[in-house]
Amino acid sequence: MRNIRLVIEYDGSKYHGWQFQSNAHSVQQELAMAIKKLTGESVIPDGAGRTDAGVHALGQVASFMTKSSIPAERFAPALNSILSSGISVLRSEQVDPDFNPRFSAKGKHYCYLILNRAQRSPLWEKRAWHIRETLDHDAMKKAAQYLTGTHYFKAFCASGHQNKTFDRTITHSSWQFKDGILRYDTMGNAFLYNMVRIMVGTMVDIGRGRFPPEIILEAFKTGDRNTLGMTAPAAGLYLVEVFY
Amino acid sequence: MRNIRLVIEYDGSKYHGWQFQSNAHSVQQELAMAIKKLTGESVIPDGAGRTDAGVHALGQVASFMTKSSIPAERFAPALNSILSSGISVLRSEQVDPDFNPRFSAKGKHYCYLILNRAQRSPLWEKRAWHIRETLDHDAMKKAAQYLTGTHYFKAFCASGHQNKTFDRTITHSSWQFKDGILRYDTMGNAFLYNMVRIMVGTMVDIGRGRFPPEIILEAFKTGDRNTLGMTAPAAGLYLVEVFY
Repeated sequence: MRNIRLVIEYDGSKYHGWQFQSNAHSVQQELAMAIKKLTGESVIPDGAGRTDAGVHALGQVASFMTKSSIPAERFAPALNSILSSGISVLRSEQVDPDFNPRFSAKGKHYCYLILNRAQRSPLWEKRAWHIRETLDHDAMKKAAQYLTGTHYFKAFCASGHQNKTFDRTITHSSWQFKDGILRYDTMGNAFLYNMVRIMVGTMVDIGRGRFPPEIILEAFKTGDRNTLGMTAPAAGLYLVEVFY
Repeated sequence: MRNIRLVIEYDGSKYHGWQFQSNAHSVQQELAMAIKKLTGESVIPDGAGRTDAGVHALGQVASFMTKSSIPAERFAPALNSILSSGISVLRSEQVDPDFNPRFSAKGKHYCYLILNRAQRSPLWEKRAWHIRETLDHDAMKKAAQYLTGTHYFKAFCASGHQNKTFDRTITHSSWQFKDGILRYDTMGNAFLYNMVRIMVGTMVDIGRGRFPPEIILEAFKTGDRNTLGMTAPAAGLYLVEVFY
């Protein structure tokens, strides 16, 4: 048995999230079906992060065990010839038998895109959050800086989670503003359920002047989700890379 | 009667091109239907460039005459509330009665995107030309420089055109190479039918080593389409801006 690791890109607008569900089409399910067609083996691939419906991935990581004799690097093109156009395997390689994409992960990189202009965009539809109002970029940058470091992120965790601890370390948190596209990048050791979307939603509310940037410092103390801003829509979020 | 100018973005993959056709869905047709619904007037808006099926626009320009009393700048949001998500009017304004988006144009800016990597991309599907082979960037840059200036571009014109003269001036022609995305930008006073796509297709064949960059200088002399490379796919082409 070999353990095969895949790096995967997908258009989240075409799936009901990463995770297998009995009543909806998921990335994990389509991947399992393609592996079955290729190798004849029934396996459910593990994933590094359970992206929600609408969330995109540029570098999701999955792995599965196989008895097949297909060379490891051939899985990428072979699976792509089976998978629909919404999913693409970018790379495939053999890894240690005890590698697990979720538990072996040392960190993740997410980015979030906002289209900030008066009229909607056909080309950014389902790819970015469309916001019409002018936002205070300086206040958003200040908020992004407050998020860096090790903090108690319970206020940034949506209900319905399975998280038991809430201390997380954000190593990178920054905004870039260019031609009406606002891009937020964050890296951290691990993220709570909906954490990036609550961070972005809160920073947008700060940019709108609804809150001061210091509301973030307050939320680290109280751990109260209700003190923060909205959860940003799934469509703007991208899982860029998983670090091992 | 007022003449209203619109700047329009559209996802070319959702339409059979700009121009009205009796048997297929076009941008011009959907725009005419939205204007009819908004003002009650039957007009066929003129466009600056007849983009082919699959070609995108970030800044197509159209205009139409109206007796409606709607303030000029309100046409953009009002039309967007009627148009489907594949088209968006970015700006609307009143212009001189003799303004014509095509004949008044002083120049155009197109860009072309190529995704250059081993595996296909869900997020760039229908947005870029996917090429797997390694390309010679230096040769492509050299070819782009040869295209700049005033030349006899007949070899860069597809059959089926209505063009009568073939001298055109390219004021800008450059490649940018970043993270597997190859972006070509060109500006000129006017472009022949399929000219940008033949330019890009030929530069890609040059990048593949099929031709030397000097084939372009040769084609300016002969005017023979058959000496050049393939026509690049529509999906990678964007009409960025029209200059007046």
